[in-house]
Amino acid sequence: MRAAVMRDSKIVVDDISAPTPGSGEVLVKTLACGICGSDLHTLIHGHQMVEMSRDNDGLFDMDLSRDVVMGHEFCAEILDYGPDTTGKLAVGTRVCAMPVLMRGGKMATAGYSNDVPGGFGEQMVLLESMMLPVTNGVSTELAALTEPMSVGYHTVEMARLQKDEVPLVIGCGPVGLAVITALKLKGVGPIIAADFSPARRKLAEQVGADVVVDPGINSPYETWTDLARADKTDGRDNPFDSGPKTRPGVYFECVGVPGVIDQLIAGAPRGGRIVVVGLCMEQDQFMPYRAITKELNIQFVLAYTGEEFASTLHNISEGLVNVEPMITGKVGLDGVADAFNDLGDPEKHAKILVEPWR
Amino acid sequence: MRAAVMRDSKIVVDDISAPTPGSGEVLVKTLACGICGSDLHTLIHGHQMVEMSRDNDGLFDMDLSRDVVMGHEFCAEILDYGPDTTGKLAVGTRVCAMPVLMRGGKMATAGYSNDVPGGFGEQMVLLESMMLPVTNGVSTELAALTEPMSVGYHTVEMARLQKDEVPLVIGCGPVGLAVITALKLKGVGPIIAADFSPARRKLAEQVGADVVVDPGINSPYETWTDLARADKTDGRDNPFDSGPKTRPGVYFECVGVPGVIDQLIAGAPRGGRIVVVGLCMEQDQFMPYRAITKELNIQFVLAYTGEEFASTLHNISEGLVNVEPMITGKVGLDGVADAFNDLGDPEKHAKILVEPWR
Repeated sequence: MRAAVMRDSKIVVDDISAPTPGSGEVLVKTLACGICGSDLHTLIHGHQMVEMSRDNDGLFDMDLSRDVVMGHEFCAEILDYGPDTTGKLAVGTRVCAMPVLMRGGKMATAGYSNDVPGGFGEQMVLLESMMLPVTNGVSTELAALTEPMSVGYHTVEMARLQKDEVPLVIGCGPVGLAVITALKLKGVGPIIAADFSPARRKLAEQVGADVVVDPGINSPYETWTDLARADKTDGRDNPFDSGPKTRPGVYFECVGVPGVIDQLIAGAPRGGRIVVVGLCMEQDQFMPYRAITKELNIQFVLAYTGEEFASTLHNISEGLVNVEPMITGKVGLDGVADAFNDLGDPEKHAKILVEPWR
Repeated sequence: MRAAVMRDSKIVVDDISAPTPGSGEVLVKTLACGICGSDLHTLIHGHQMVEMSRDNDGLFDMDLSRDVVMGHEFCAEILDYGPDTTGKLAVGTRVCAMPVLMRGGKMATAGYSNDVPGGFGEQMVLLESMMLPVTNGVSTELAALTEPMSVGYHTVEMARLQKDEVPLVIGCGPVGLAVITALKLKGVGPIIAADFSPARRKLAEQVGADVVVDPGINSPYETWTDLARADKTDGRDNPFDSGPKTRPGVYFECVGVPGVIDQLIAGAPRGGRIVVVGLCMEQDQFMPYRAITKELNIQFVLAYTGEEFASTLHNISEGLVNVEPMITGKVGLDGVADAFNDLGDPEKHAKILVEPWR
């Protein structure tokens, strides 16, 4: 099959062997697959990621001297069932799935594995147990957003928002946009979102932000304080409490570069909560004293549960979220390498979908 | 009055003017006042603390070129009432109080202020509204532990422990011991505590730790994993979950030096919670990726509420906690400078009380 392959830290198009479905697996035709920020990071910092992953969760356990086909945000069509499957969904059915398979008794992530190709190739294999049919006539493009939107959904679930809390989203790349979408769905607000890019701020408004801030002009934290101002606090009698009276705050870190967490710590109100979903893979610095005197809470989050993935596909299928504006480009396999470069410019792109059969 | 004064980063005994109670304030005779780790830190790193505090909460807003009488962990006796007071408690009554007063419309902390002397002097002024009588014949020494024990009580309250969670306390200085005491009171367990010092580990057992670990010999995190092992996890269906099945974990950071938070992040189980009460005033480093892949939660905590302070005095008065072993020395004002040095040796001391009239 044809695939856009990661080889020597470059994306090249090549003919490689198509995968064969193992026990419990299904062969599918990739219809569309989004390029994720983690894919960009892997292309450049792959060795570092593999190294760190080895000490930890094995999420990125790859041999980078061998080919890897990335792509874990896909919508696909059932081609053929492997052994030990039920065949419940008809061949030709469009499906989404969590990019998780088993290889040698260990979990493998489609797109971050030498053995399990991701969606930047014409065919993939999926675990039958992970497959969900795409229903309600929703487009393949929108269905392919299920995986990245699930990350936002999970993030907001993990934030356990109370109705009176005012959210601030720092960074309006695909992760921030997914968080804003999930916040909108929760009915909390006003949703305040900050990004240096005008195009990203416009997208933020389109998916549900009530107020957008250009941090080059206004402090997102001061804007938050103005909008969250309240007549009284939560009534706790801690005499060390000072500063303006505001509704409680939940700040979402959706950037993932060193220094941003410390900025959020400095900007957060007393008793504030910070939810970190931006995937910073480098050493970071912060001032614990600042977080201590404000009694901040920091929740780190990753990925999503199966239930959250299914809910997200449902929300997209039922038109409960407005995610179409996020798709800023579509390319065939020959366009993947350029798309990786183009995604560096937030004015031009948010999410580019790869259509391997284009 | 005589007082142990912080002057030019040294403790010297001198005769200084006694404070005069202002509106709503009460003049008291200091009976006993514990030396806190923050006092040791202030003597050495005072300028840095004042600097940082200025950008933040003003907790340590002092002019270090002028005298400061430290000491905020006190038990005192009522001498005289100032204007605008009710005089509800009889002169001669022993009292504890949160070390909080108002000066020029701003909060001032007794012991960290040029204007409000702390307990390392013969007399202090307190806000009448903050005073609580020492009842039930409890000793002055034990009553003086109310403030530091309140910090542990507040920390455990902020941890919002569930019954099945297994606590691990890193560092068994006075803060760690206060946390262990509060955990014991909550009835959770086993309580696992780690410290390099044999004397501190012994104290940890005396105040309620079920298992103590010498990190020089065994990993506290591996010990925790062994003791928290469980047949099943919390049932969440996140397929990225791996590692040994354990009961959920709450790790308490009671050390407060750079690098410890990152060690806890590295050692914590997936979904674990870290509560930071150790007051690190320096820049710190950590790896966000590790915290993200384990979806850790970090709660920073400081001080206590008025209700928690009152509950702590009650618990001490009713003999519900065993805190007497923490008192490892008593000195008069002439012994304060040496006591500051002696507290550097965890084998010799945990809490030294200053008795200004000794």
